[in-house]
Amino acid sequence: MSFLLDARLKTDCIEVSDLELSKLLLMNNRNVPWLILVPKKEDAVEITDLSITEQHLLLDEINLITQIQNKLFNPDKINTAAIGNIVPQLHIHIIGRYKTDPVWPAPVWGNLQAEPYHQGELQQRIQLLKHAIHI
Amino acid sequence: MSFLLDARLKTDCIEVSDLELSKLLLMNNRNVPWLILVPKKEDAVEITDLSITEQHLLLDEINLITQIQNKLFNPDKINTAAIGNIVPQLHIHIIGRYKTDPVWPAPVWGNLQAEPYHQGELQQRIQLLKHAIHI
Repeated sequence: MSFLLDARLKTDCIEVSDLELSKLLLMNNRNVPWLILVPKKEDAVEITDLSITEQHLLLDEINLITQIQNKLFNPDKINTAAIGNIVPQLHIHIIGRYKTDPVWPAPVWGNLQAEPYHQGELQQRIQLLKHAIHI
Repeated sequence: MSFLLDARLKTDCIEVSDLELSKLLLMNNRNVPWLILVPKKEDAVEITDLSITEQHLLLDEINLITQIQNKLFNPDKINTAAIGNIVPQLHIHIIGRYKTDPVWPAPVWGNLQAEPYHQGELQQRIQLLKHAIHI
């Protein structure tokens, strides 16, 4: 059995890195720094579909990505969430939010319009993230 | 230093139980089964403000509440989220969602109107939850 990234996530996001448990994706929306962890476990839908060992690994990766958010983007708040009402494949949003962002304090889902990164900006952001992961 | 539950959570929710790390609250909205874990740690805002031991405990409590959601309410999907844009005190939503609920597939925050439980119904639900926690 092999893991396949959901088609909607593949369309909306850019793959940044393969961590031990999860793929790290960047949502292609320059309005907020929006990162997503997708555990590479076929058919996982809820966090509780992972074993407790995998859940602890996921927590480690959530801690890493939260640190990277704070270090690189200095948000006012982090929103961490596993929703999955539209894309059932288990994925965890780790989104940097600002009191000045377009939809604060509302959640981004269903509210924040997509505004893709410009080409050079996207490459720069991905490099920045790849570099931060390996520190 | 002593933990005090945020005033907004106190107004909107009913306290169900004290778990090892967290208080378990029931959102007073009969539209969906909406449970909230509030780690009893003063000044915690992000999950990463907890020690790794506390985070593992939180994960155990998320697993317990997710099992209870599935057992008692049989939802189509669980939404697990730490948002905190309005109430900064760290709290984790564990919400049972149904394809037939009033705002599916949108997130509940900012979308689902509050419809308080009727008096007898509320007492019954709290008893049901208290009982499930001790199984």
